[in-house]
Amino acid sequence: MTTIAIAAPGAMGAAIGAVLAQHGARVITPLSQRSAQSQQRAQQANIVDCSAEALCEADIILSILPPESALSWAQQMAPLLQAAVHKPLYVDCNAISPETLKQVAQVIESTGTPFADAAIIGLPPGEQNPTGPRFWFAGPHAGKLAQLSDYGLRIRLMNAQNGAASALKMAYAGINKGITLLTSAMLINASRVGAAEALREEMQESQQALLKRMEKAAPDMLPKAWRWAAEMDEIATLNQGELATDQLYRALGEICRQLADNRQHDQQFSALLADFFQPDADKAG
Amino acid sequence: MTTIAIAAPGAMGAAIGAVLAQHGARVITPLSQRSAQSQQRAQQANIVDCSAEALCEADIILSILPPESALSWAQQMAPLLQAAVHKPLYVDCNAISPETLKQVAQVIESTGTPFADAAIIGLPPGEQNPTGPRFWFAGPHAGKLAQLSDYGLRIRLMNAQNGAASALKMAYAGINKGITLLTSAMLINASRVGAAEALREEMQESQQALLKRMEKAAPDMLPKAWRWAAEMDEIATLNQGELATDQLYRALGEICRQLADNRQHDQQFSALLADFFQPDADKAG
Repeated sequence: MTTIAIAAPGAMGAAIGAVLAQHGARVITPLSQRSAQSQQRAQQANIVDCSAEALCEADIILSILPPESALSWAQQMAPLLQAAVHKPLYVDCNAISPETLKQVAQVIESTGTPFADAAIIGLPPGEQNPTGPRFWFAGPHAGKLAQLSDYGLRIRLMNAQNGAASALKMAYAGINKGITLLTSAMLINASRVGAAEALREEMQESQQALLKRMEKAAPDMLPKAWRWAAEMDEIATLNQGELATDQLYRALGEICRQLADNRQHDQQFSALLADFFQPDADKAG
Repeated sequence: MTTIAIAAPGAMGAAIGAVLAQHGARVITPLSQRSAQSQQRAQQANIVDCSAEALCEADIILSILPPESALSWAQQMAPLLQAAVHKPLYVDCNAISPETLKQVAQVIESTGTPFADAAIIGLPPGEQNPTGPRFWFAGPHAGKLAQLSDYGLRIRLMNAQNGAASALKMAYAGINKGITLLTSAMLINASRVGAAEALREEMQESQQALLKRMEKAAPDMLPKAWRWAAEMDEIATLNQGELATDQLYRALGEICRQLADNRQHDQQFSALLADFFQPDADKAG
C-alpha cells in the first residue's frame, strides 16, 4: 500500500486526501496542532493522524498549503527529512512563483530528498468539481508521480524543469484573474462618467462571451480581492525583466487592494459594478 | 439637403463619407493638400473638395482623424469657425481621452461653435462590416445628431456630458486590447519556461472562448503593437487616480513597445506566440 502524506488538511488538501484514501492509499497528516474543524475534516476524509517524523516515512509528501507557508513548512521539514533513512518524494503543489519554488527545492534537495514541482489547476474535488482538478508535474522526478492516477487523481506530466509547473499555475491564474481585474476596473471607470449603459450595449453586441464571463467573475472576485492582491504580487515576479509583466501585475495587485479597501468604506466600486450588471434592479425598487 | 464636412478622407472618414453621400447628404472635405491616394478615395466616395473656409458652412463637421491630430486640427479650425457667421455643429469622433476631449471642446466652444463628443465603435463600413460601426453621441448637443440615422449611420445617444463618449471608447478599447496584451504577455512568459503545451491544454479544457479569441487577436495585434502603445498611454489618463488603471495601462503600453521592438530584432516573442497557437507547424516541417 502506498502511503501519501498531506502537509495540512485545508480545503484542497483534505479533498485531495479523501480521493486518495477512497482509491486505497494510506493518507497521513499531523493533526495534533490543528483546529477541531481541521481534525474533523481529516477524519471525514479518512486521513490518519501522524507525527511530523512519521510524515517522512511516506512514499510521497504533497505540500498543499496557503502559498505564504510553502517555504517555511519546507524549512520546518528539512531537519526531519535530513534525519530520515528512507527519503520520500517531496512534491510542492503550491501557488508560488518559480523564484519561490526554486528556494523550496533548494531547502528540500539539500537534505538528499527528491523533489518535484506541481501545479493544481481547478477547484478541489467535490460537488462543484466532480472530476477534480488537474495535477501537472515537472522536474526530473515527475515521472514517478504518474502512479497517482491509480489513486484517483487527474495527472499530466510536463516534459520540463522544476519551476515550469509553478510558472504554468502563475500564468493561468494571471490570465484569468488579470482579465477579471482589468475589465472590472474599466467598467468602474466607464460607469463613473455615465458610459455604463453604452458600454454594456456595445459588449452585448460584440463581446457577449466576455460580458457573460464578467457577470459571474466580477461579483465573485470582490470578496476575494484582498487575497488576490498577494497572488498578483507573486505573479509579478514571474520572468521579471523579460516583458513588463512585473509592472502590469503590481498594478493589478494595487487595484485589488483598492477594491478591497473600498469594500471597507463607501463601497462605491462594488455598487457601480452591481449596477453595471443589473441596471434595472435599482430602477425597479 | 444636409451638408456634412469630414475632417479628412482617411480609411474611416472616407468610408463614413461614402455612406452619408449614398443616403443623399452632400459630403465635403478639403482635398488640396491631400495625397493622390486620398483624393482618389474621396472621389470614389462621392466626397466633394472644398476650401477650409467652406468647411465651416457645413451643417455638421465630423472630426475623424488619427488621435494625435484631433487637438491640432481643432486649433487650425478655430479662427475659421470664429469668423463664420453660420456655425456648424462640430463633432469630435476621435479615439482620445476625456482629458484631451475637454481641451478640444474648449478650443471649439470658445469660438461660439456648438460641440458634441462622439465615439465610433467598430470597423469602417465596408465588406468586413456591412452594417457599419456604431456612433455614440454625448453632450448637450447630442440630440441634434439623431438625424444622422436618416443618412445611413447607426446612431446611439448617451444621456451624458461631453467626455462620456470618449470614456466609452477608451474603456471599450482598454478592455479588448488590454485582454489581448495581458494574455499574450503571459503566454510568452509561460512558453519561455516550457509550460506552453500544458497552458494550451488547460485553456482548451476551461477557457475555450478565450483561447479561440486569442488565436486571432494575438497575431493581429503584433504588427499594430507600436500604434497600440500610444493608445494604451492615452487610456492610462482615463479617470487617473480613482483606481490604479494609470499604472496598469502604462505597463500595457510598455509591453506594446517591447513587443514592437522585438519584432525589429530576434522576433523571439512572435515566434513563441506562433508556436503556442500552432504547436505542430514546426514539428511537421
